[in-house]
Amino acid sequence: MVDKETLAQFIRTEFPQTRVVIDSVGQRAATVSLDVDDSDLRPGGTVSGPTMMALADVALYVAVLGEIGIVPLAVTTNLTINFLRRPAAGQRLRGECQLMKVGKSLAIGEVSLYSAGNDEPVAHVVGTYAIPPQHLR
Amino acid sequence: MVDKETLAQFIRTEFPQTRVVIDSVGQRAATVSLDVDDSDLRPGGTVSGPTMMALADVALYVAVLGEIGIVPLAVTTNLTINFLRRPAAGQRLRGECQLMKVGKSLAIGEVSLYSAGNDEPVAHVVGTYAIPPQHLR
Amino acid sequence: MVDKETLAQFIRTEFPQTRVVIDSVGQRAATVSLDVDDSDLRPGGTVSGPTMMALADVALYVAVLGEIGIVPLAVTTNLTINFLRRPAAGQRLRGECQLMKVGKSLAIGEVSLYSAGNDEPVAHVVGTYAIPPQHLR
Amino acid sequence: MVDKETLAQFIRTEFPQTRVVIDSVGQRAATVSLDVDDSDLRPGGTVSGPTMMALADVALYVAVLGEIGIVPLAVTTNLTINFLRRPAAGQRLRGECQLMKVGKSLAIGEVSLYSAGNDEPVAHVVGTYAIPPQHLR
Repeated sequence: MVDKETLAQFIRTEFPQTRVVIDSVGQRAATVSLDVDDSDLRPGGTVSGPTMMALADVALYVAVLGEIGIVPLAVTTNLTINFLRRPAAGQRLRGECQLMKVGKSLAIGEVSLYSAGNDEPVAHVVGTYAIPPQHLR
Repeated sequence: MVDKETLAQFIRTEFPQTRVVIDSVGQRAATVSLDVDDSDLRPGGTVSGPTMMALADVALYVAVLGEIGIVPLAVTTNLTINFLRRPAAGQRLRGECQLMKVGKSLAIGEVSLYSAGNDEPVAHVVGTYAIPPQHLR
Repeated sequence: MVDKETLAQFIRTEFPQTRVVIDSVGQRAATVSLDVDDSDLRPGGTVSGPTMMALADVALYVAVLGEIGIVPLAVTTNLTINFLRRPAAGQRLRGECQLMKVGKSLAIGEVSLYSAGNDEPVAHVVGTYAIPPQHLR
Repeated sequence: MVDKETLAQFIRTEFPQTRVVIDSVGQRAATVSLDVDDSDLRPGGTVSGPTMMALADVALYVAVLGEIGIVPLAVTTNLTINFLRRPAAGQRLRGECQLMKVGKSLAIGEVSLYSAGNDEPVAHVVGTYAIPPQHLR
């Protein structure tokens, strides 16, 4: 188990451009969030798909590292996203990840994305991380 | 059928931040590419996952609009990406989209992503666009 | 809303070969289960992948019809399954579906599959059903 | 590389109930086919979704084993299917698999499914097989 501050520090180093914040991590789960700004929006004021995918990817990564420790070589191998509703433009976006399996070589989790103030998810992601074998870490 | 210049103009308006370029469109297909820069990279020099997802999403969108015409309300509903190999940091990224179905309400296509100079794909995407009914366009 | 008996009758007509049983339906959810028999097993005694996909597909279908009513033209357009753990051979398989969206033309839900007696899911499915427009039903 | 007869013998042992036939294998590819019968059909005469998923799964498995040899512990970890068109009831179903990556621990491929006599695919699958490490085979 890795604590939130250690992970936050690691994420700032690994993703220097990211504005994603870790809200909580632990128990095979993680919550992350993003203060949506103009660079995340498309005309009409909706949040862009890639912004949502990126947030979900970080949520998965944080949840996985929270379980296996800081392993920089862990990589996403597969990600499926379903877009469910238009997120609100001015609202913070939150990603809640729950891991379904943390095996020796693969970790699989799902992420529900929410616009602050709305109980219905705006998108849903299932993703797989490949975990390198011990001797390669 | 919509020509490449009309589509390029539309993409510049819809995605003002994008640096993706349309290389070709037509015949239920499209090729787009991106000059990868520092903002697309992660430490170690590999292209970030969200950059690849964004490029694939534009490739799909361009291929779909090339068939159905400029329909701004068409939205991605579902996207699955498999990451296959590390893309080279300094190389242009290319997305080749082929639509498998263009129906009345759904269009489905696949995109292979390539790093310039490598014949093996770095990622593969399958995605679905929902096409609004005529009276809502 | 459609009650369980009406749906069970419809499923028996639509899938005459199925041995899947509806345990509950309602509230944008459904639980179905299957008494695994020899025809569902692979050597070594594990339940076959297609058996799990079929069970998840019925769970989704039942949950969707429970919301929109008996609409035989509703069809699966997309399904993603992640296999998480080996199901036990002699155990009943249960699929718990929760819909994430029931829109006018698409319904999207997830299904967790469980082997009786084990709290950890053996597989996870996300699937989309296309709902035909009113005038085509 | 494993030849077609060896693979056919192995598939008959592993999937004793299957009626799927191997048409060709090699070059990171495989073609398999199925003589659709009444047990594969749904009312109205269309081929059931699980029948298509099962055929695609065998196509992937055969293509993977054709590359890495007979490794019974290789298992599907992830499969995404998009249903594109209604297959014809009386027509043989064919699955053409092309692997996109054969790594040390994962193999990823896509399968296009066709109804005999129709050039447009009826479904498209992307799937991942986990390959056990050498010392566990």
